[in-house]
Amino acid sequence: MPKTAEPQGYSRRGFLTRVGATGGAGAMFATMGALGLAPSAEAHTKVPFQPPQQSDFRLRGRGAAKVLVLGAGVAGLAAAYELGKAGYDCTILEAQDRVGGRNRTLRGGDRLEEIGGATQRIGFSKDVYLNAGPARIAQWMTTMDYCRELGVPLEVFTNSNASAYIYNESAGMTAPVRWRTAKADVFGYISELLAKATDQGALDQRLTSTDKERLLSFLSGFGAIGNKAAGYAYTGTERRGYTVDPGAGDQVGTVLGPPPSLSEVFASGVGRSFSFEFGYSQAMLMFQPVGGMDAIPRALADALGKHKIRTGAKVTKITNLASGVKVEYVQHGRTRVVEADYCIATLPPQILAKIPHNLGASVQAALATPVPASTGKIGLEYGSRWWETDEDIYGGITNTDLDLSTIWYPSHGYGTRRGLVVGYYNFGAAANAYAALTHPERLARALDQGAKIHGPRYKTGITASASISWSRQEHIEGGWIGWPSRGAEYKLLNQPQGNVYYSGDWLSYEIAWQHGSFESARKVVTELHQRVLKG
Amino acid sequence: MPKTAEPQGYSRRGFLTRVGATGGAGAMFATMGALGLAPSAEAHTKVPFQPPQQSDFRLRGRGAAKVLVLGAGVAGLAAAYELGKAGYDCTILEAQDRVGGRNRTLRGGDRLEEIGGATQRIGFSKDVYLNAGPARIAQWMTTMDYCRELGVPLEVFTNSNASAYIYNESAGMTAPVRWRTAKADVFGYISELLAKATDQGALDQRLTSTDKERLLSFLSGFGAIGNKAAGYAYTGTERRGYTVDPGAGDQVGTVLGPPPSLSEVFASGVGRSFSFEFGYSQAMLMFQPVGGMDAIPRALADALGKHKIRTGAKVTKITNLASGVKVEYVQHGRTRVVEADYCIATLPPQILAKIPHNLGASVQAALATPVPASTGKIGLEYGSRWWETDEDIYGGITNTDLDLSTIWYPSHGYGTRRGLVVGYYNFGAAANAYAALTHPERLARALDQGAKIHGPRYKTGITASASISWSRQEHIEGGWIGWPSRGAEYKLLNQPQGNVYYSGDWLSYEIAWQHGSFESARKVVTELHQRVLKG
Repeated sequence: MPKTAEPQGYSRRGFLTRVGATGGAGAMFATMGALGLAPSAEAHTKVPFQPPQQSDFRLRGRGAAKVLVLGAGVAGLAAAYELGKAGYDCTILEAQDRVGGRNRTLRGGDRLEEIGGATQRIGFSKDVYLNAGPARIAQWMTTMDYCRELGVPLEVFTNSNASAYIYNESAGMTAPVRWRTAKADVFGYISELLAKATDQGALDQRLTSTDKERLLSFLSGFGAIGNKAAGYAYTGTERRGYTVDPGAGDQVGTVLGPPPSLSEVFASGVGRSFSFEFGYSQAMLMFQPVGGMDAIPRALADALGKHKIRTGAKVTKITNLASGVKVEYVQHGRTRVVEADYCIATLPPQILAKIPHNLGASVQAALATPVPASTGKIGLEYGSRWWETDEDIYGGITNTDLDLSTIWYPSHGYGTRRGLVVGYYNFGAAANAYAALTHPERLARALDQGAKIHGPRYKTGITASASISWSRQEHIEGGWIGWPSRGAEYKLLNQPQGNVYYSGDWLSYEIAWQHGSFESARKVVTELHQRVLKG
Repeated sequence: MPKTAEPQGYSRRGFLTRVGATGGAGAMFATMGALGLAPSAEAHTKVPFQPPQQSDFRLRGRGAAKVLVLGAGVAGLAAAYELGKAGYDCTILEAQDRVGGRNRTLRGGDRLEEIGGATQRIGFSKDVYLNAGPARIAQWMTTMDYCRELGVPLEVFTNSNASAYIYNESAGMTAPVRWRTAKADVFGYISELLAKATDQGALDQRLTSTDKERLLSFLSGFGAIGNKAAGYAYTGTERRGYTVDPGAGDQVGTVLGPPPSLSEVFASGVGRSFSFEFGYSQAMLMFQPVGGMDAIPRALADALGKHKIRTGAKVTKITNLASGVKVEYVQHGRTRVVEADYCIATLPPQILAKIPHNLGASVQAALATPVPASTGKIGLEYGSRWWETDEDIYGGITNTDLDLSTIWYPSHGYGTRRGLVVGYYNFGAAANAYAALTHPERLARALDQGAKIHGPRYKTGITASASISWSRQEHIEGGWIGWPSRGAEYKLLNQPQGNVYYSGDWLSYEIAWQHGSFESARKVVTELHQRVLKG
């Protein structure tokens, strides 16, 4: 990819000419490839990765090394999986009795324990589950490639749905509004305002007369506003929705209206939610594995070989040696010691910071630098899918300023009998508030809040529920971490310390995404492999 | 549903108070129900429908009548299915050798014939199909309820994807731009413009100072623009996308940029495409039956009983009798006559207009009034899903001003080996132009056009293809119809003519949607049943 800024779209020819003039045919070809014009073009934007291969060792007189991986989360599994392709002898030590780390899917029959001893026995029905950790994958993410490679079937995860709601209680809203309605009103009024200002010449310094004409034409369609004679006024549109749908014969449909005033719409703050779906990591389409997110760690573990994973193995000491690494761990009440050439530590930094090591004070300070973030979810299984049958909401997310933050409707099992609503997915103070409660208290609080959106029915027909507080999960103690700044500490842990490497989403620019874990694993695998090849 | 305009959202309490004051407790309760507040609330907006039941005839001394249904498209199947619930003796006459009408899914092994004799033998692989007719369902549509009732599994159909492209050649664009990039730029510049105008006081007549403050706050997030000191300038954002994705270590990602100028963005016309996804019928989420849209007519036919459907039966005469109806048809080369109490004619009006009848000149004139619309599609099966692996496009639609109009990427089979791209789905003059070509010519033309978006690779690796021109389909002769106006002719055909009823999407306000067919069938079934009950 050329370093030159690449104005994708709009004007390819001019750009290619410029590149051709300054960079020669090679640069031009590379650019054409990036744009999808060259025969072997690849328009995607992935960071390149070449998995280690057995053949890499040919002619070099070296063999694959022995590697200890700490943690069977996504980063650890991916590192061992990739190294395994070249014959590395990997062993994963995992404190829990399962793989996946924060990638956990709760199903009927599961036990969910919290620090402090509270235990939930999950009573979800067959085919009902809660992705307690990661729950969505953007289509550009490396996670998609692993699903393809591992044969994990995907389906759409609905991150945006025009029929879901926005509800900002603190802004004075006393009823939820559907996304479609909020967008129609906000886009209607901003189009009206900008059309008025443009027409009145307020922007003549910035706009040519041709710009103005094109802008007014755009605003007319974008806002569904009146014409000049009508003062460009926004007065509502079928985009708001209907109270009675269009049907047959004389049933033209009754458009929901009239819209609230401009002041009411801006006071409601509904527009605050809009930019969420423009984010590179949150824009639709998004995906989820069919049947639960834990299909990913399970597929990685299967591909890697389960015999390489020691569960129930809690690491208690990491010692860097002159020519290797020694790790102590406790399994079934016994302390064991294992040695290897290298170690890849993928535990959360707040957990690593508690494990004695000999890597020095700066490493210890670096591990203690990131700040764990609190987050939690509750899953509410209902015996009917009332959000579909009664409210025409087939997946998606309701955004609120309540302490439940968001309500998620299921992105699978449409039209079936049961389903699971995520009754809260929240962060920070709100997550801490729920974390401090027992599960029944969390449930009651979530229902009280959610009933503000969906009415009293929200509290009835619940057949099972489960809640997770990630800060209260042993061996994890947080949903993810934040770096106060990506300074020297971030750099330090992104380098090997002796024979110890660190890896995880917390060492990437996509924290809290499996993509970050995969990318970090690939980076460390590449570095470790190159080191081994060099000898 | 109260006739009162219903300002859903923003301010429920005030509205309820108003209703309570003027309409009494009953009106207030009904309104609360409509808002989802009452215990048995249903917030959906469906036109009410009560299917006929056997028990309706109790105490009335009447029995279900005999009904001939002309056409086994969605309207005909639905009418017979609903009447069957009450024991009506329905027979469907269908000219083709299959059910579904325009709801047709093309698969490997199918033959597709056109008026004029051209025949395609479809060579698609297993699990690869083309929904030649309807291909998407909005979540509010009655079609969703039939899928639930009939047990037709649904999955998301992707109508909007941030990673798909927009390409307006006639506007001078020389390269496609991704939807995410186009939105970032258009929303960025309109936010900049409106923020400037607002800040400069150009809108002070329309906005209070509080409005202005809130609007500027909204625009800051919506457009990702600079602050006041920066002149509210839009200079690009990660929302545009990346040339190198964010990854691990120091891979912060390379944002795609810089954006083209404001004039270039408006000149490109990309914003013209945006309002499509705000439409009540086109807004995400949308759905498709798993495995092909024809799951719906097949499920209807199964539920109804296939013995009630006579295929290969071309209607040649419709005679209204004093106490019933007589229909002549040709089947296996033989003319047959069948009589019944009532007839429901669901054939397209342009087909019905060619069938002799005794219903009078005004009916004939009415049948000849709607104007058939031309539309067509081509399905391109590729041996690899390059749009996923190389361009990170997992479903969705690319919009163009080329004569291919749109390119659709498949909404199922993600990550598998093969897949089918809809190479054009066009209308009017463009559809007519392709209709006039042989299939190989259509293919060549579609590939020439599509290569402008995807480069030369678009022309390689195609393992099978099929194209349909709905105006060249016998017994159908058009994708749908348009009413020059819904005047006396529309009203006339929406009433029974003697014992003959008409039904179809063409007699609804959702033409070209299965919803319109279902709603029309429900309307006619209700009217016919009420008439029979009255005797």
